[in-house]
Amino acid sequence: MSSTYGENLKLSIFGQSHGAGIGMTLDGIPAGLSVDLDALQAFLDRRAPGQNSWSTPRKEADKPEILAGIVDGCTCGAPIAAVIRNNNTRSGDYENLKDCPRQGHADYTAQIKYGGFQDCAGGGHFSGRLTAPLCIAGGMCKQWLEEMGIRIGAHIVRIGTEAAEGFDPLQPQLDQVGQFFPTLDADSAERFQSVIAGVRSEGDSVGGMIQCAISGLPAGLGEPMFGGVESRIAQIVYGIPAVKNVGFGIDAASCCGSEYNDSFTVEDGKIVTATNHCGGVLGGITTGMPVLFNVSIKPTPSIAKLQKTVSLSRMEQTELQVKGRHDPCIVPRAVPVVEAAAAIAVFDMILGNTQTSRRK
Amino acid sequence: MSSTYGENLKLSIFGQSHGAGIGMTLDGIPAGLSVDLDALQAFLDRRAPGQNSWSTPRKEADKPEILAGIVDGCTCGAPIAAVIRNNNTRSGDYENLKDCPRQGHADYTAQIKYGGFQDCAGGGHFSGRLTAPLCIAGGMCKQWLEEMGIRIGAHIVRIGTEAAEGFDPLQPQLDQVGQFFPTLDADSAERFQSVIAGVRSEGDSVGGMIQCAISGLPAGLGEPMFGGVESRIAQIVYGIPAVKNVGFGIDAASCCGSEYNDSFTVEDGKIVTATNHCGGVLGGITTGMPVLFNVSIKPTPSIAKLQKTVSLSRMEQTELQVKGRHDPCIVPRAVPVVEAAAAIAVFDMILGNTQTSRRK
Amino acid sequence: MSSTYGENLKLSIFGQSHGAGIGMTLDGIPAGLSVDLDALQAFLDRRAPGQNSWSTPRKEADKPEILAGIVDGCTCGAPIAAVIRNNNTRSGDYENLKDCPRQGHADYTAQIKYGGFQDCAGGGHFSGRLTAPLCIAGGMCKQWLEEMGIRIGAHIVRIGTEAAEGFDPLQPQLDQVGQFFPTLDADSAERFQSVIAGVRSEGDSVGGMIQCAISGLPAGLGEPMFGGVESRIAQIVYGIPAVKNVGFGIDAASCCGSEYNDSFTVEDGKIVTATNHCGGVLGGITTGMPVLFNVSIKPTPSIAKLQKTVSLSRMEQTELQVKGRHDPCIVPRAVPVVEAAAAIAVFDMILGNTQTSRRK
Amino acid sequence: MSSTYGENLKLSIFGQSHGAGIGMTLDGIPAGLSVDLDALQAFLDRRAPGQNSWSTPRKEADKPEILAGIVDGCTCGAPIAAVIRNNNTRSGDYENLKDCPRQGHADYTAQIKYGGFQDCAGGGHFSGRLTAPLCIAGGMCKQWLEEMGIRIGAHIVRIGTEAAEGFDPLQPQLDQVGQFFPTLDADSAERFQSVIAGVRSEGDSVGGMIQCAISGLPAGLGEPMFGGVESRIAQIVYGIPAVKNVGFGIDAASCCGSEYNDSFTVEDGKIVTATNHCGGVLGGITTGMPVLFNVSIKPTPSIAKLQKTVSLSRMEQTELQVKGRHDPCIVPRAVPVVEAAAAIAVFDMILGNTQTSRRK
Repeated sequence: MSSTYGENLKLSIFGQSHGAGIGMTLDGIPAGLSVDLDALQAFLDRRAPGQNSWSTPRKEADKPEILAGIVDGCTCGAPIAAVIRNNNTRSGDYENLKDCPRQGHADYTAQIKYGGFQDCAGGGHFSGRLTAPLCIAGGMCKQWLEEMGIRIGAHIVRIGTEAAEGFDPLQPQLDQVGQFFPTLDADSAERFQSVIAGVRSEGDSVGGMIQCAISGLPAGLGEPMFGGVESRIAQIVYGIPAVKNVGFGIDAASCCGSEYNDSFTVEDGKIVTATNHCGGVLGGITTGMPVLFNVSIKPTPSIAKLQKTVSLSRMEQTELQVKGRHDPCIVPRAVPVVEAAAAIAVFDMILGNTQTSRRK
Repeated sequence: MSSTYGENLKLSIFGQSHGAGIGMTLDGIPAGLSVDLDALQAFLDRRAPGQNSWSTPRKEADKPEILAGIVDGCTCGAPIAAVIRNNNTRSGDYENLKDCPRQGHADYTAQIKYGGFQDCAGGGHFSGRLTAPLCIAGGMCKQWLEEMGIRIGAHIVRIGTEAAEGFDPLQPQLDQVGQFFPTLDADSAERFQSVIAGVRSEGDSVGGMIQCAISGLPAGLGEPMFGGVESRIAQIVYGIPAVKNVGFGIDAASCCGSEYNDSFTVEDGKIVTATNHCGGVLGGITTGMPVLFNVSIKPTPSIAKLQKTVSLSRMEQTELQVKGRHDPCIVPRAVPVVEAAAAIAVFDMILGNTQTSRRK
Repeated sequence: MSSTYGENLKLSIFGQSHGAGIGMTLDGIPAGLSVDLDALQAFLDRRAPGQNSWSTPRKEADKPEILAGIVDGCTCGAPIAAVIRNNNTRSGDYENLKDCPRQGHADYTAQIKYGGFQDCAGGGHFSGRLTAPLCIAGGMCKQWLEEMGIRIGAHIVRIGTEAAEGFDPLQPQLDQVGQFFPTLDADSAERFQSVIAGVRSEGDSVGGMIQCAISGLPAGLGEPMFGGVESRIAQIVYGIPAVKNVGFGIDAASCCGSEYNDSFTVEDGKIVTATNHCGGVLGGITTGMPVLFNVSIKPTPSIAKLQKTVSLSRMEQTELQVKGRHDPCIVPRAVPVVEAAAAIAVFDMILGNTQTSRRK
Repeated sequence: MSSTYGENLKLSIFGQSHGAGIGMTLDGIPAGLSVDLDALQAFLDRRAPGQNSWSTPRKEADKPEILAGIVDGCTCGAPIAAVIRNNNTRSGDYENLKDCPRQGHADYTAQIKYGGFQDCAGGGHFSGRLTAPLCIAGGMCKQWLEEMGIRIGAHIVRIGTEAAEGFDPLQPQLDQVGQFFPTLDADSAERFQSVIAGVRSEGDSVGGMIQCAISGLPAGLGEPMFGGVESRIAQIVYGIPAVKNVGFGIDAASCCGSEYNDSFTVEDGKIVTATNHCGGVLGGITTGMPVLFNVSIKPTPSIAKLQKTVSLSRMEQTELQVKGRHDPCIVPRAVPVVEAAAAIAVFDMILGNTQTSRRK
């Protein structure tokens, strides 16, 4: 029940970091939707490791093989299945993690949960590598949404203590996000990369915040209560490893109603809100304005610095230095993953959107 | 699919603010669990309106009638059903909301979604009143968790720009939270009430932040990916009207790994973490330390000040003054609701917790 | 997870035979669908007890109160909730069932499952009385389907060893079914009633078979594999107490392919099958021909004859004579229940039917 | 939503008959359960085609590759994923099925549902080949159940008009079922094979009935109403292509209560029923006696005889002779598939069986 998401579509993700393969099944997708596999690969490449100085040098081609569900470039109504082979597989390096769990990883919690039977190599099923199949599903959903005029884009608004401006909440500048480093402006990109370079040189890591915008949504999407847009998006986004905060719109907690409330107005014969403090969602249902949300990503737990952990067999504290090289900052690679998660949640809601008035 | 929550239990909530009744069905609960109806009523009273100067004077007894599932004070294995009659029912006051939606409410989004067929009286199914049946279910789950040594408590850490200290993340002081006003100390209670009094006198409203702690949890609870503790809690908490942010542990985005990572250590023969920055969750699975999360509540949208909206029939802007009196700050009444939501999510995960190692 | 049904709608049923009330919540229904409450009551009356010589004389008005979800005679998009008060409630008569379970009932299995905490009065949650809320939900779905030209009707084709003709599989004669006794012809009605009168006079009971037809369905309804029409209908129909067999079309096991296969042909510019041996379903998907299925109902377990059971406390065999009067044959009253179950399954599939080609 | 099954486990099946591969993901399985891959292969071989005179000569090794979820022969808590490569893949032979659908297959219904985008080669996702991944999941569940003392076995009780005895309902002779041809006795095997040989020689096909027994089940398994054992088993068994009837115990429709009711009695200090007419299920909950059910399988639709179909493009009747060789009787190969489906349903219910009394 764990690695499955969706009400109208059913996404099932499988794989461990160093197993034979990782992949996904995506069921409930209408027939006749075209899939551009080159565009999908380009989307996956945004997440792939080993491309630049701030990510892990582990090289994985991350080329998905489509096993089912797509015929002649179109969905055929059957479940879509895809697998990515793991090339850099299991070594003996990880065995002692069962005894000395790494800080900040799921080594200890998985050990307790699975009683030592978990696959601990590279974090097993808890590895960030599992976001690759999430991006396969999300990359397809993103394409289908784009055909409906719904666009999703994300960028970095904070790395450590350095911050950048967010999107224009009325007209998010999705096309302005940098290709090489996902910020709205070159200055922020430089500052953020400088922070990352700094922590890397110290053998440390750093967290950050991603802002995601969804534009072109119709008003009236989402369901009341636990089926609201915020609930649906938060559930899937929290499925991305390292996410620790999900928030919609501006900081509501510190506002007065008179400043927070968004006035309705008429623009070009269409109802809009004059501001978009609520992030495009009222009562869990879209207003028709862009949906905006922020996602906080914790610093990569694996750092070169010596850290304290315990030996579970000896039940005493010990020290652990995580070997190998790891991303000093996972935030840039998490940007397409957040987009993928949002795309899946939105497409799922679109599929269920018939459950409204038959007469409207 | 909207007002239903749960993987191992199934909670279904029904009702509109001014309909005949509101209520819930809670299916999947083991037989033989005792329910203290007086304690449940006391819990519901913490949420009930009309008790003090910062909440709406609408008086509703909020006495649930148990229709099914409890026999001789114990669950009998059949679904539990309860209903609260609405006494203060529908007046004609709300009809014009279909034409002139209130800012910040779901009037407009419901109008679009349901094509005018929605029950707009008092916000209908989107009303905060629907948190009463959530508290029936959550109040019961809270009792059952307490019998297992799992305690849940929440308090206010911000009202507008005024802030207070959070819980001790290693040993949350659940018993220290004020009965009359839910803060950790009297000084904060006074400052927060003063802010609320201020906005009320100006016909305005104010938002705030609630912190919730869950102590006594076993390590190993939760499922990977979309079934993680954070995903499950965020989904249900975002089902509470007015919630706009849900975050776990400290602000991870601005930290370096060397400061954020929690060291494992041994204390009284038990594995613990020396700090609890992650909020008790690693990889979606509990560490055995207290789970801590923050919830931002937006300011009550209904304010006495004149606001701008539109007439949907005339498609032009107009002004609207929301009549009647409303809570200038919903945050204090939301505190038990956040506890209820957390209790339901945790009890649901406890029920599903057999899906781990058979040999541990 | 037990008393909940549906993929696109969510039906949740609650109540025990002698509790305060029985009822249901039906979530996920589009707004703007009208509900004729008089027609619903007439449908419920077909199931109600105490009306004639073959059913239990327990009198229950079975008048549902709509608590939520319907405003001004139309669905409003919020979950629909209804409750039926139990008037003939708990007496002390049932207490010894915990020690001496009745044959053929769920007394023993519930005792083991719920450890003695079950509500055993009148069978508790396992009572046939729980089919009343199923008929509330199903009666509404039946109305909504009728507005789309989809009609559902059932009749009795066997009581004990007496049999009657089934529907014309190409054009089921739904309007020909008797109002007073649901058979296609008066002769069968007489024969069946005579069998029932016979077993009643002997203090015995008898089983039977119901055939149900669904006409007006579009081709292409249903999902592959576990989401097929047969899977969906069988799951809900087996939720009706006393059902022991569900089959579609003619007896396929004894046929050769050359006789069983239905030829496609063109009639009035429409693709039809020349015969309808498959019961209107190929590969789990509707052909556009009427869907036909048979449901076997076991004889009422409560009979006046002395029967053998055990005393669980003394762990020895004993005898039990079930007191009170019970339906000697539940089959006639089960006819509208089968229709209700079919209506819910079909309406659920209709709601999900967008998950097909976008271009067709 | 179609090819997904389970409440406590989640089985997701993918693939088309002539696509790159078919497979499954099985989520929610506890860690630490051992999997005997040789025994699994032996189980799969019982279903595999091309082995004898009554099945299709298409040769497929049906060797699953485990992609995830199993480490060192044990489940690791992560979803189990497996794929079987298709060797005999797509030829051009099937293209005209989009215009001239084969009788009795899903060609026409899929064409309508998916608007021509379906993969029609070999029946695509509707092919009986998709029962191979069902057998991977079911074969594993069967192993895990056997470790708990729960055994599942099936045999053929009818081919066309020839019938054989069923299991002893109190002590099903699971070990007596033939390895080469699954019947209880050699005489029935001979008669059945003779019927199959007869229809094959005429270019025809024939249906049959399978009886399945599950022994060693604890009493108290299953949930009320839609979660009952009969509902859960029927839903998954109807997911097997060609199944048209599912029934439990003896023919209840023709019985009187005095003959159908099973008396409780005490045997070796254990409560049992003296007979087992109900097939081991009362009120949807197991009695602790063997669960017995019958499954009718329709005759293979593909026959060598000339049959009538339509040309969808010309909208006129035409004739079709299905080329290639097909199973004249699918029943023998369906026997392990029925066992697999039952194993999945039972293991799913076992996983959820904590939702009962905590004190029993």
